[in-house]
Amino acid sequence: MTDKIEVMENIYGENEKIAGRVAASLAAKGVLCVNVMGAPGSGKTSSLIRLIEGLGAEYAAYVIEGDIESDIDTQKLKSLGVEAIQINTHGACHLDAAIIESTVGSMKFKKRGVLFIENIGNLVCPAEFLIGEHLKLLVVSTADGSDKPYKYPLAFEKADAIIINKTDLLPYVDFDREFFVAGVRALNRNAPIFFVSAKTGGDFDEVVKWLRKKAGTI
Amino acid sequence: MTDKIEVMENIYGENEKIAGRVAASLAAKGVLCVNVMGAPGSGKTSSLIRLIEGLGAEYAAYVIEGDIESDIDTQKLKSLGVEAIQINTHGACHLDAAIIESTVGSMKFKKRGVLFIENIGNLVCPAEFLIGEHLKLLVVSTADGSDKPYKYPLAFEKADAIIINKTDLLPYVDFDREFFVAGVRALNRNAPIFFVSAKTGGDFDEVVKWLRKKAGTI
Repeated sequence: MTDKIEVMENIYGENEKIAGRVAASLAAKGVLCVNVMGAPGSGKTSSLIRLIEGLGAEYAAYVIEGDIESDIDTQKLKSLGVEAIQINTHGACHLDAAIIESTVGSMKFKKRGVLFIENIGNLVCPAEFLIGEHLKLLVVSTADGSDKPYKYPLAFEKADAIIINKTDLLPYVDFDREFFVAGVRALNRNAPIFFVSAKTGGDFDEVVKWLRKKAGTI
Repeated sequence: MTDKIEVMENIYGENEKIAGRVAASLAAKGVLCVNVMGAPGSGKTSSLIRLIEGLGAEYAAYVIEGDIESDIDTQKLKSLGVEAIQINTHGACHLDAAIIESTVGSMKFKKRGVLFIENIGNLVCPAEFLIGEHLKLLVVSTADGSDKPYKYPLAFEKADAIIINKTDLLPYVDFDREFFVAGVRALNRNAPIFFVSAKTGGDFDEVVKWLRKKAGTI
């Protein structure tokens, strides 16, 4: 397995270098890059839509959609008038910096704003790979239970903000808010935790405020 | 990246060899090995509990719990009187055959039955690695939406049976059953699809019947 470890170290190192390049080039254009991570079905795309609505006219919204297969989310965004570019990884369990660098290279950023990159639905692997982001936004569903920080620590440790989505389901699922927050705080003292429902749109104001503040300082 | 491809091919080949050994040795003991896969929070452990209840006295139930960190699920099983062994991968996104071979080597199988191996919560990577199973059981949550087969095809393609869990949430979530089943059937013509609620225990009879039939022919 030494071969594997060496190859993986080379891959991480090269990836980090490219990610640094992407982040710097986006910052120079006034574009904040947000790596949106979360398990399958946590509501990454529907949260994105709420955030884009909230950003308003002051900031442009750019979207790259990562999926193993299909362009369902990109079509959903386009039907709402949001420009989105689809990447299909055809099996790969996470996006990497090289694929983002080549995608970003083909995009036009006419105005300052936010580039959302929706990663592959996976609570494990995406947390290990930088893709050129300035911030990692983690989306979690109440329906998936409150033990997730304990079972999948890395994503929670690395997140710059955490959205607990699907609060509309709280009356019907077992979600222990205190246990969840304690699990997050053991790993990550600083990331704000936002309880929201992308379905009803409730409580997104605070997330938007946080995002606009970050976009204003890039 | 040629190095990576070569190393990965060696890893897959070696893994497959060990998995074959594990599967044969369990079959020789009259133990059916079920690889339980699914996204984080889909309800793998609670489905396991329903299946173990349903197996009854005729078949013994053995459990290996795979998690990146924590032993929450193993403690839950033990509190219900189910013998379970915890594996923590400390970062790795899936179980592999070597870790299962060494774990199974330390277990005593006194009676014919079923060994459930709960894989890491991840709808992507576990589908790529055999771990010594005779069957793959995929657990999906209605709350995660009906587009999962389109976005994460490999797990659905390889599944021997699919459990759609959390049907108790159907009145509160957008789940298009027809769209979901069509997506599964485009990838997998044969796997039975069971709609169940591990929370209420509803509709597990058919899954248990299927499992007992499989356990009877090992």
